[in-house]
Amino acid sequence: MARRTVAIMGLMTAPHTLILLRHGQSEWNELNLFTGWVDVRLSEQGKAEAKRGGELLAEAGLHPDILYTSVLSRAIQTADIALDSADRLWIPVKRSWRLNERHYGALQGKDKAQTLAEFGQEQFMLWRRSFDVPPPLLDDDSEWSQVNDPRYVGIDGEIPRTESLSLVIDRLLPYWESDIAPDLLSGKTVLVTAHGNSLRGLVKHLEGISDADIAELNIPTGIPLVYKLDDELNALGPGEYLDPDAAAAGAAAVAAQGAK
Amino acid sequence: MARRTVAIMGLMTAPHTLILLRHGQSEWNELNLFTGWVDVRLSEQGKAEAKRGGELLAEAGLHPDILYTSVLSRAIQTADIALDSADRLWIPVKRSWRLNERHYGALQGKDKAQTLAEFGQEQFMLWRRSFDVPPPLLDDDSEWSQVNDPRYVGIDGEIPRTESLSLVIDRLLPYWESDIAPDLLSGKTVLVTAHGNSLRGLVKHLEGISDADIAELNIPTGIPLVYKLDDELNALGPGEYLDPDAAAAGAAAVAAQGAK
Repeated sequence: MARRTVAIMGLMTAPHTLILLRHGQSEWNELNLFTGWVDVRLSEQGKAEAKRGGELLAEAGLHPDILYTSVLSRAIQTADIALDSADRLWIPVKRSWRLNERHYGALQGKDKAQTLAEFGQEQFMLWRRSFDVPPPLLDDDSEWSQVNDPRYVGIDGEIPRTESLSLVIDRLLPYWESDIAPDLLSGKTVLVTAHGNSLRGLVKHLEGISDADIAELNIPTGIPLVYKLDDELNALGPGEYLDPDAAAAGAAAVAAQGAK
Repeated sequence: MARRTVAIMGLMTAPHTLILLRHGQSEWNELNLFTGWVDVRLSEQGKAEAKRGGELLAEAGLHPDILYTSVLSRAIQTADIALDSADRLWIPVKRSWRLNERHYGALQGKDKAQTLAEFGQEQFMLWRRSFDVPPPLLDDDSEWSQVNDPRYVGIDGEIPRTESLSLVIDRLLPYWESDIAPDLLSGKTVLVTAHGNSLRGLVKHLEGISDADIAELNIPTGIPLVYKLDDELNALGPGEYLDPDAAAAGAAAVAAQGAK
Protein backbone atom coordinates (compact mmCIF):
# COMPACT_ATOMS: atom_id res chain seq x y z
CA MET A 1 0.00 0.00 0.00
CA ALA A 2 2.81 2.35 0.96
CA ARG A 3 4.65 1.41 -2.23
CA ARG A 4 1.55 2.04 -4.34
CA THR A 5 1.14 5.50 -2.79
CA VAL A 6 4.74 6.34 -3.64
CA ALA A 7 4.24 5.20 -7.21
CA ILE A 8 1.09 7.30 -7.56
CA MET A 9 2.81 10.34 -6.08
CA GLY A 10 5.65 9.80 -8.56
CA LEU A 11 3.22 9.72 -11.46
CA MET A 12 1.55 12.83 -10.19
CA THR A 13 4.74 14.84 -9.94
CA ALA A 14 6.68 13.70 -13.03
CA PRO A 15 8.15 15.23 -15.07
CA HIS A 16 10.53 16.61 -12.48
CA THR A 17 12.19 19.96 -13.16
CA LEU A 18 15.91 20.51 -12.70
CA ILE A 19 17.58 23.81 -13.55
CA LEU A 20 21.35 24.00 -13.98
CA LEU A 21 23.14 27.35 -13.90
CA ARG A 22 26.85 27.77 -14.53
CA HIS A 23 28.28 30.74 -12.63
CA GLY A 24 28.84 33.98 -14.54
CA GLN A 25 32.26 35.10 -15.73
CA SER A 26 34.78 35.20 -12.89
CA GLU A 27 37.75 37.49 -12.43
CA TRP A 28 40.00 34.64 -13.55
CA ASN A 29 37.83 33.67 -16.54
CA GLU A 30 38.37 37.27 -17.59
CA LEU A 31 42.14 36.92 -17.11
CA ASN A 32 42.11 33.54 -18.95
CA LEU A 33 43.61 31.64 -15.98
CA PHE A 34 42.89 28.05 -14.89
CA THR A 35 40.83 28.41 -11.72
CA GLY A 36 39.59 25.06 -10.38
CA TRP A 37 39.19 25.27 -6.61
CA VAL A 38 40.80 28.71 -6.28
CA ASP A 39 38.06 30.89 -4.75
CA VAL A 40 37.86 33.86 -7.10
CA ARG A 41 34.88 36.22 -7.32
CA LEU A 42 32.61 37.16 -10.23
CA SER A 43 33.68 39.92 -12.60
CA GLU A 44 31.25 42.78 -13.26
CA GLN A 45 30.22 40.99 -16.45
CA GLY A 46 29.66 37.84 -14.39
CA LYS A 47 27.34 39.70 -12.02
CA ALA A 48 25.36 41.03 -15.00
CA GLU A 49 25.09 37.48 -16.39
CA ALA A 50 23.79 36.20 -13.06
CA LYS A 51 21.17 38.95 -12.93
CA ARG A 52 20.06 38.09 -16.45
CA GLY A 53 19.94 34.40 -15.47
CA GLY A 54 17.46 35.19 -12.71
CA GLU A 55 15.36 37.34 -15.05
CA LEU A 56 15.21 34.45 -17.54
CA LEU A 57 13.92 32.16 -14.77
CA ALA A 58 11.22 34.64 -13.80
CA GLU A 59 10.21 35.29 -17.44
CA ALA A 60 9.91 31.52 -18.02
CA GLY A 61 7.70 31.19 -14.93
CA LEU A 62 10.18 28.80 -13.30
CA HIS A 63 10.12 28.93 -9.52
CA PRO A 64 12.95 27.00 -7.83
CA ASP A 65 11.91 25.52 -4.48
CA ILE A 66 15.44 24.79 -3.30
CA LEU A 67 18.95 25.87 -4.25
CA TYR A 68 22.08 23.74 -4.36
CA THR A 69 25.50 25.39 -4.74
CA SER A 70 29.15 24.44 -4.49
CA VAL A 71 31.19 26.03 -1.69
CA LEU A 72 32.99 28.33 -4.14
CA SER A 73 32.12 32.01 -3.92
CA ARG A 74 31.55 32.54 -7.64
CA ALA A 75 28.73 29.97 -7.69
CA ILE A 76 27.23 31.34 -4.48
CA GLN A 77 27.37 34.93 -5.77
CA THR A 78 25.70 33.80 -8.99
CA ALA A 79 22.89 32.10 -7.07
CA ASP A 80 22.40 35.06 -4.72
CA ILE A 81 22.18 37.54 -7.60
CA ALA A 82 19.98 35.33 -9.80
CA LEU A 83 17.55 34.52 -6.97
CA ASP A 84 17.39 38.20 -6.04
CA SER A 85 16.36 39.15 -9.58
CA ALA A 86 13.90 36.19 -9.65
CA ASP A 87 12.48 37.26 -6.22
CA ARG A 88 13.28 33.85 -4.68
CA LEU A 89 16.04 34.81 -2.23
CA TRP A 90 14.12 33.08 0.56
CA ILE A 91 14.24 29.48 -0.71
CA PRO A 92 16.26 26.92 1.30
CA VAL A 93 19.93 26.53 0.36
CA LYS A 94 22.29 23.58 0.54
CA ARG A 95 25.98 23.77 -0.30
CA SER A 96 28.48 20.99 -0.93
CA TRP A 97 32.11 20.76 -2.02
CA ARG A 98 30.89 17.86 -4.17
CA LEU A 99 29.44 20.44 -6.59
CA ASN A 100 32.78 22.28 -6.83
CA GLU A 101 34.56 22.90 -10.11
CA ARG A 102 37.07 20.26 -11.19
CA HIS A 103 40.31 20.63 -9.25
CA TYR A 104 42.79 21.67 -11.93
CA GLY A 105 45.88 20.38 -10.12
CA ALA A 106 49.17 22.07 -10.95
CA LEU A 107 47.44 24.13 -13.67
CA GLN A 108 45.55 26.22 -11.07
CA GLY A 109 46.69 29.82 -11.34
CA LYS A 110 48.33 29.31 -14.77
CA ASP A 111 47.52 31.32 -17.89
CA LYS A 112 45.59 29.23 -20.42
CA ALA A 113 47.24 30.69 -23.53
CA GLN A 114 50.69 30.35 -21.95
CA THR A 115 49.97 26.73 -20.99
CA LEU A 116 48.82 26.04 -24.54
CA ALA A 117 52.02 27.58 -25.96
CA GLU A 118 54.23 25.73 -23.45
CA PHE A 119 52.74 22.24 -23.70
CA GLY A 120 51.19 22.22 -27.17
CA GLN A 121 47.64 21.69 -28.41
CA GLU A 122 47.49 17.94 -27.81
CA GLN A 123 48.55 17.98 -24.15
CA PHE A 124 46.48 21.10 -23.52
CA MET A 125 43.29 19.52 -24.88
CA LEU A 126 44.05 16.27 -23.03
CA TRP A 127 44.09 18.15 -19.72
CA ARG A 128 41.04 20.20 -20.60
CA ARG A 129 38.80 17.66 -22.24
CA SER A 130 40.00 14.09 -21.73
CA PHE A 131 37.64 12.09 -19.55
CA ASP A 132 40.12 10.52 -17.20
CA VAL A 133 43.54 12.15 -17.50
CA PRO A 134 44.02 14.58 -14.59
CA PRO A 135 46.59 17.39 -14.73
CA PRO A 136 49.74 16.96 -12.57
CA LEU A 137 49.19 17.11 -8.79
CA LEU A 138 49.13 20.53 -7.14
CA ASP A 139 51.82 20.83 -4.47
CA ASP A 140 50.42 21.37 -0.94
CA ASP A 141 52.84 24.30 -0.53
CA SER A 142 51.43 26.11 -3.58
CA GLU A 143 49.69 29.41 -2.95
CA TRP A 144 46.81 27.92 -4.97
CA SER A 145 46.40 24.84 -2.78
CA GLN A 146 43.24 24.34 -0.67
CA VAL A 147 44.71 21.97 1.95
CA ASN A 148 44.47 24.65 4.67
CA ASP A 149 41.17 26.19 3.56
CA PRO A 150 38.71 26.11 6.51
CA ARG A 151 35.75 25.30 4.25
CA TYR A 152 37.14 21.80 3.67
CA VAL A 153 37.74 20.92 7.31
CA GLY A 154 35.90 17.72 8.10
CA ILE A 155 34.87 16.75 4.55
CA ASP A 156 34.60 13.03 4.08
CA GLY A 157 37.56 11.84 2.05
CA GLU A 158 40.77 13.63 1.21
CA ILE A 159 40.98 17.09 -0.36
CA PRO A 160 41.86 16.58 -4.04
CA ARG A 161 45.23 17.71 -5.43
CA THR A 162 43.97 17.26 -9.01
CA GLU A 163 40.94 15.80 -10.75
CA SER A 164 39.84 14.45 -14.11
CA LEU A 165 36.21 14.77 -15.18
CA SER A 166 35.84 11.11 -14.25
CA LEU A 167 36.96 11.85 -10.68
CA VAL A 168 34.55 14.81 -10.51
CA ILE A 169 31.68 12.49 -11.40
CA ASP A 170 32.84 9.99 -8.76
CA ARG A 171 32.51 12.60 -5.98
CA LEU A 172 29.46 14.32 -7.47
CA LEU A 173 27.08 11.38 -7.94
CA PRO A 174 26.90 10.29 -4.28
CA TYR A 175 25.59 13.78 -3.44
CA TRP A 176 23.19 13.72 -6.36
CA GLU A 177 21.77 10.44 -5.08
CA SER A 178 21.70 11.35 -1.37
CA ASP A 179 20.40 14.92 -1.53
CA ILE A 180 19.35 16.31 -4.90
CA ALA A 181 17.48 13.29 -6.26
CA PRO A 182 15.15 12.94 -3.23
CA ASP A 183 14.20 16.63 -3.51
CA LEU A 184 13.35 16.20 -7.20
CA LEU A 185 11.34 13.05 -6.52
CA SER A 186 9.39 14.84 -3.80
CA GLY A 187 8.17 17.28 -6.45
CA LYS A 188 10.50 20.21 -5.83
CA THR A 189 11.88 22.33 -8.66
CA VAL A 190 15.63 22.22 -7.99
CA LEU A 191 18.19 24.86 -9.00
CA VAL A 192 21.84 23.78 -9.05
CA THR A 193 24.30 26.65 -9.39
CA ALA A 194 27.76 25.27 -10.05
CA HIS A 195 30.64 25.07 -12.52
CA GLY A 196 31.59 24.18 -16.08
CA ASN A 197 32.92 20.73 -15.21
CA SER A 198 30.69 19.70 -12.31
CA LEU A 199 27.70 20.54 -14.52
CA ARG A 200 29.24 18.67 -17.49
CA GLY A 201 29.54 15.65 -15.23
CA LEU A 202 25.93 15.93 -14.18
CA VAL A 203 24.68 16.40 -17.76
CA LYS A 204 26.72 13.36 -18.84
CA HIS A 205 24.91 11.32 -16.20
CA LEU A 206 21.43 12.70 -16.98
CA GLU A 207 21.66 12.34 -20.75
CA GLY A 208 23.77 9.17 -20.77
CA ILE A 209 26.53 10.79 -22.86
CA SER A 210 29.56 8.57 -23.57
CA ASP A 211 33.03 9.18 -22.13
CA ALA A 212 34.21 10.17 -25.64
CA ASP A 213 31.31 12.44 -26.59
CA ILE A 214 31.34 14.47 -23.38
CA ALA A 215 34.54 16.16 -24.66
CA GLU A 216 32.40 18.09 -27.14
CA LEU A 217 29.96 19.45 -24.57
CA ASN A 218 30.50 23.05 -23.48
CA ILE A 219 28.16 24.79 -21.05
CA PRO A 220 27.90 28.59 -21.33
CA THR A 221 27.92 30.83 -18.26
CA GLY A 222 24.83 32.41 -16.71
CA ILE A 223 22.10 30.85 -18.87
CA PRO A 224 19.66 28.52 -17.10
CA LEU A 225 19.60 24.99 -18.59
CA VAL A 226 16.31 23.22 -17.88
CA TYR A 227 15.80 19.45 -17.71
CA LYS A 228 12.57 17.54 -17.45
CA LEU A 229 13.22 14.17 -15.79
CA ASP A 230 11.20 10.98 -15.52
CA ASP A 231 10.65 9.08 -12.26
CA GLU A 232 14.01 7.35 -12.73
CA LEU A 233 15.51 10.85 -13.05
CA ASN A 234 16.57 10.24 -16.62
CA ALA A 235 16.30 13.25 -18.93
CA LEU A 236 13.13 13.19 -21.04
CA GLY A 237 15.07 15.02 -23.75
CA PRO A 238 18.12 17.26 -24.13
CA GLY A 239 18.31 20.17 -21.70
CA GLU A 240 16.84 23.43 -22.97
CA TYR A 241 18.56 26.75 -22.51
CA LEU A 242 16.25 29.63 -21.63
CA ASP A 243 18.12 31.82 -24.14
CA PRO A 244 19.22 29.40 -26.91
CA ASP A 245 20.97 31.99 -29.11
CA ALA A 246 23.07 33.38 -26.26
CA ALA A 247 23.78 29.80 -25.12
CA ALA A 248 25.15 28.78 -28.53
CA ALA A 249 27.42 31.82 -28.65
CA GLY A 250 28.52 31.22 -25.06
CA ALA A 251 29.32 27.54 -25.68
CA ALA A 252 31.44 28.48 -28.71
CA ALA A 253 33.35 31.00 -26.58
CA VAL A 254 34.07 28.30 -23.95
CA ALA A 255 35.30 25.92 -26.66
CA ALA A 256 37.69 28.58 -27.98
CA GLN A 257 39.33 29.28 -24.60
CA GLY A 258 43.09 29.18 -24.57
CA ALA A 259 43.33 30.28 -28.19
CA LYS A 260 43.12 33.90 -27.09
CA MET B 1 29.09 7.52 30.32
CA ALA B 2 27.40 9.16 27.34
CA ARG B 3 26.15 11.94 29.64
CA ARG B 4 29.64 12.48 31.06
CA THR B 5 31.09 12.79 27.54
CA VAL B 6 28.49 15.43 26.66
CA ALA B 7 29.30 17.36 29.83
CA ILE B 8 33.02 17.28 29.06
CA MET B 9 32.42 18.39 25.49
CA GLY B 10 30.30 21.23 26.84
CA LEU B 11 33.06 22.34 29.19
CA MET B 12 35.56 22.18 26.38
CA THR B 13 33.56 24.40 24.06
CA ALA B 14 32.02 27.01 26.45
CA PRO B 15 31.79 29.94 26.22
CA HIS B 16 29.70 29.63 23.09
CA THR B 17 29.72 32.48 20.59
CA LEU B 18 26.54 33.92 19.12
CA ILE B 19 26.58 36.89 16.76
CA LEU B 20 23.39 38.86 16.08
CA LEU B 21 23.15 41.19 13.11
CA ARG B 22 20.16 43.40 12.38
CA HIS B 23 19.70 44.00 8.66
CA GLY B 24 20.92 47.29 7.21
CA GLN B 25 18.59 50.16 6.36
CA SER B 26 15.80 49.05 4.04
CA GLU B 27 14.00 51.04 1.38
CA TRP B 28 11.07 51.41 3.77
CA ASN B 29 13.23 52.34 6.79
CA GLU B 30 14.43 55.14 4.55
CA LEU B 31 10.82 56.13 3.75
CA ASN B 32 9.86 55.85 7.47
CA LEU B 33 7.13 53.26 6.81
CA PHE B 34 6.08 50.35 9.05
CA THR B 35 7.40 47.25 7.28
CA GLY B 36 6.85 44.06 9.28
CA TRP B 37 6.51 41.11 6.91
CA VAL B 38 6.42 43.23 3.73
CA ASP B 39 9.41 42.02 1.71
CA VAL B 40 11.30 45.22 0.89
CA ARG B 41 14.96 45.33 -0.16
CA LEU B 42 17.96 47.10 1.36
CA SER B 43 18.64 50.72 0.46
CA GLU B 44 22.10 51.67 -0.83
CA GLN B 45 22.95 52.79 2.71
CA GLY B 46 21.73 49.42 4.00
CA LYS B 47 24.07 47.59 1.62
CA ALA B 48 26.98 49.72 2.81
CA GLU B 49 26.07 48.93 6.43
CA ALA B 50 26.00 45.19 5.66
CA LYS B 51 29.43 45.39 4.03
CA ARG B 52 30.80 47.20 7.05
CA GLY B 53 29.20 44.58 9.31
CA GLY B 54 31.16 41.85 7.54
CA GLU B 55 34.38 43.84 7.76
CA LEU B 56 33.85 44.26 11.51
CA LEU B 57 33.50 40.47 11.86
CA ALA B 58 36.71 39.85 9.93
CA GLU B 59 38.62 42.55 11.86
CA ALA B 60 37.48 41.00 15.15
CA GLY B 61 38.66 37.57 14.01
CA LEU B 62 35.13 36.17 14.33
CA HIS B 63 34.45 33.30 11.94
CA PRO B 64 30.80 32.21 11.80
CA ASP B 65 30.42 28.48 11.12
CA ILE B 66 26.74 28.65 10.23
CA LEU B 67 24.26 31.35 9.24
CA TYR B 68 20.63 31.66 10.28
CA THR B 69 18.34 34.16 8.53
CA SER B 70 14.66 34.98 8.35
CA VAL B 71 12.91 34.45 5.01
CA LEU B 72 12.76 38.20 4.37
CA SER B 73 14.99 39.51 1.58
CA ARG B 74 16.48 42.40 3.55
CA ALA B 75 17.95 40.01 6.15
CA ILE B 76 19.17 37.61 3.46
CA GLN B 77 20.78 40.44 1.47
CA THR B 78 22.48 41.67 4.63
CA ALA B 79 23.87 38.21 5.36
CA ASP B 80 25.04 37.67 1.78
CA ILE B 81 26.84 41.02 1.66
CA ALA B 82 28.36 40.71 5.15
CA LEU B 83 29.59 37.15 4.56
CA ASP B 84 31.03 38.19 1.21
CA SER B 85 33.09 40.94 2.85
CA ALA B 86 34.08 38.53 5.66
CA ASP B 87 35.06 35.86 3.07
CA ARG B 88 32.64 33.31 4.58
CA LEU B 89 30.07 33.04 1.77
CA TRP B 90 30.48 29.27 1.80
CA ILE B 91 29.17 28.51 5.31
CA PRO B 92 25.92 26.52 5.63
CA VAL B 93 22.69 28.53 5.73
CA LYS B 94 19.35 27.90 7.38
CA ARG B 95 16.32 30.14 6.98
CA SER B 96 13.10 30.27 8.97
CA TRP B 97 10.01 32.47 9.06
CA ARG B 98 10.36 32.18 12.85
CA LEU B 99 13.21 34.72 12.63
CA ASN B 100 11.03 37.19 10.68
CA GLU B 101 10.39 40.74 11.83
CA ARG B 102 7.31 41.26 13.97
CA HIS B 103 4.18 41.28 11.83
CA TYR B 104 2.95 44.86 12.15
CA GLY B 105 -0.69 44.10 11.40
CA ALA B 106 -2.76 46.92 9.92
CA LEU B 107 0.17 49.31 10.35
CA GLN B 108 2.17 47.59 7.57
CA GLY B 109 2.69 50.05 4.73
CA LYS B 110 1.73 53.08 6.86
CA ASP B 111 3.92 56.14 7.39
CA LYS B 112 5.30 56.26 10.94
CA ALA B 113 5.09 60.04 11.36
CA GLN B 114 1.55 60.07 9.94
CA THR B 115 0.52 57.24 12.28
CA LEU B 116 1.98 59.16 15.21
CA ALA B 117 0.06 62.30 14.24
CA GLU B 118 -3.16 60.37 13.64
CA PHE B 119 -3.22 58.21 16.79
CA GLY B 120 -1.11 60.22 19.23
CA GLN B 121 2.07 59.47 21.15
CA GLU B 122 0.53 57.08 23.67
CA GLN B 123 -1.15 54.73 21.20
CA PHE B 124 1.84 54.96 18.85
CA MET B 125 4.30 53.91 21.56
CA LEU B 126 1.94 51.19 22.76
CA TRP B 127 1.99 49.61 19.30
CA ARG B 128 5.71 50.07 18.90
CA ARG B 129 7.02 49.14 22.33
CA SER B 130 4.39 47.48 24.50
CA PHE B 131 5.22 43.85 25.19
CA ASP B 132 1.89 42.28 24.45
CA VAL B 133 -0.43 44.71 22.67
CA PRO B 134 -0.47 43.89 18.95
CA PRO B 135 -1.59 46.43 16.33
CA PRO B 136 -5.00 45.84 14.69
CA LEU B 137 -5.26 42.79 12.40
CA LEU B 138 -4.16 43.21 8.80
CA ASP B 139 -6.97 42.41 6.38
CA ASP B 140 -6.24 39.40 4.13
CA ASP B 141 -7.28 41.52 1.13
CA SER B 142 -4.67 44.18 1.87
CA GLU B 143 -1.90 44.65 -0.67
CA TRP B 144 0.49 44.28 2.31
CA SER B 145 -0.87 40.89 3.42
CA GLN B 146 1.29 37.74 3.17
CA VAL B 147 -1.51 35.17 3.10
CA ASN B 148 -0.78 34.32 -0.56
CA ASP B 149 3.01 34.58 -0.38
CA PRO B 150 4.54 31.27 -1.60
CA ARG B 151 7.31 31.41 1.01
CA TYR B 152 4.78 30.66 3.76
CA VAL B 153 3.12 27.69 2.09
CA GLY B 154 3.30 24.74 4.45
CA ILE B 155 4.55 26.55 7.56
CA ASP B 156 3.37 24.96 10.76
CA GLY B 157 0.68 27.14 12.27
CA GLU B 158 -1.27 29.97 10.74
CA ILE B 159 0.28 32.99 9.00
CA PRO B 160 0.07 35.90 11.45
CA ARG B 161 -2.18 38.91 10.74
CA THR B 162 -0.50 40.91 13.51
CA GLU B 163 1.97 40.28 16.32
CA SER B 164 3.08 41.75 19.63
CA LEU B 165 6.67 41.25 20.79
CA SER B 166 5.32 38.57 23.10
CA LEU B 167 3.89 36.65 20.13
CA VAL B 168 7.19 37.03 18.26
CA ILE B 169 8.98 35.38 21.19
CA ASP B 170 6.38 32.60 21.24
CA ARG B 171 7.15 31.63 17.64
CA LEU B 172 10.87 32.36 17.85
CA LEU B 173 11.90 30.30 20.89
CA PRO B 174 10.84 26.87 19.55
CA TYR B 175 13.25 27.44 16.63
CA TRP B 176 15.98 28.67 18.95
CA GLU B 177 15.63 25.47 20.98
CA SER B 178 15.29 23.06 18.05
CA ASP B 179 17.93 24.42 15.68
CA ILE B 180 20.15 27.27 16.87
CA ALA B 181 20.86 26.04 20.41
CA PRO B 182 22.15 22.61 19.32
CA ASP B 183 24.55 24.27 16.86
CA LEU B 184 25.90 26.54 19.61
CA LEU B 185 26.27 23.63 22.03
CA SER B 186 28.16 21.63 19.42
CA GLY B 187 30.80 24.38 19.43
CA LYS B 188 29.78 26.31 16.31
CA THR B 189 30.01 30.08 16.10
CA VAL B 190 26.50 31.04 15.00
CA LEU B 191 25.51 34.17 13.05
CA VAL B 192 21.83 35.17 13.16
CA THR B 193 20.88 37.84 10.65
CA ALA B 194 17.39 39.08 11.38
CA HIS B 195 15.26 42.06 12.42
CA GLY B 196 14.81 44.72 15.09
CA ASN B 197 12.04 42.90 16.92
CA SER B 198 12.99 39.25 16.41
CA LEU B 199 16.45 40.14 17.74
CA ARG B 200 14.95 42.13 20.66
CA GLY B 201 12.97 39.01 21.53
CA LEU B 202 16.08 36.86 21.44
CA VAL B 203 18.12 39.34 23.51
CA LYS B 204 15.30 39.49 26.07
CA HIS B 205 15.53 35.72 26.41
CA LEU B 206 19.35 35.58 26.55
CA GLU B 207 19.78 38.38 29.07
CA GLY B 208 16.62 37.67 31.07
CA ILE B 209 15.27 41.22 30.52
CA SER B 210 11.81 41.90 32.02
CA ASP B 211 8.66 42.51 29.96
CA ALA B 212 8.76 46.16 31.08
CA ASP B 213 12.46 46.85 30.52
CA ILE B 214 12.60 45.41 27.01
CA ALA B 215 10.70 48.52 25.82
CA GLU B 216 13.91 50.53 26.28
CA LEU B 217 16.10 48.22 24.20
CA ASN B 218 16.86 49.40 20.66
CA ILE B 219 19.15 47.45 18.36
CA PRO B 220 20.97 49.44 15.66
CA THR B 221 21.23 48.20 12.07
CA GLY B 222 24.29 46.55 10.56
CA ILE B 223 26.54 46.31 13.64
CA PRO B 224 27.39 42.79 14.87
CA LEU B 225 26.32 42.18 18.49
CA VAL B 226 28.37 39.41 20.09
CA TYR B 227 27.26 37.21 22.99
CA LYS B 228 29.29 34.73 24.98
CA LEU B 229 27.00 32.06 26.41
CA ASP B 230 27.43 29.43 29.10
CA ASP B 231 26.45 25.78 28.70
CA GLU B 232 22.87 26.64 29.61
CA LEU B 233 23.04 29.23 26.82
CA ASN B 234 22.58 32.12 29.23
CA ALA B 235 24.53 35.27 28.37
CA LEU B 236 27.77 35.56 30.37
CA GLY B 237 27.36 39.33 30.21
CA PRO B 238 25.66 41.97 28.08
CA GLY B 239 26.15 41.64 24.35
CA GLU B 240 29.06 43.61 22.92
CA TYR B 241 28.78 45.63 19.73
CA LEU B 242 31.83 45.43 17.49
CA ASP B 243 31.59 49.21 16.93
CA PRO B 244 30.20 50.58 20.24
CA ASP B 245 30.17 54.26 19.21
CA ALA B 246 28.26 53.62 15.99
CA ALA B 247 25.94 51.27 17.88
CA ALA B 248 25.02 53.94 20.45
CA ALA B 249 24.27 56.46 17.71
CA GLY B 250 22.30 53.83 15.77
CA ALA B 251 20.20 52.82 18.79
CA ALA B 252 19.33 56.47 19.47
CA ALA B 253 18.21 56.85 15.86
CA VAL B 254 15.93 53.79 16.18
CA ALA B 255 14.42 55.19 19.39
CA ALA B 256 13.66 58.49 17.65
CA GLN B 257 11.77 56.90 14.73
CA GLY B 258 8.37 58.36 14.01
CA ALA B 259 9.39 61.76 15.28
CA LYS B 260 10.81 62.62 11.87
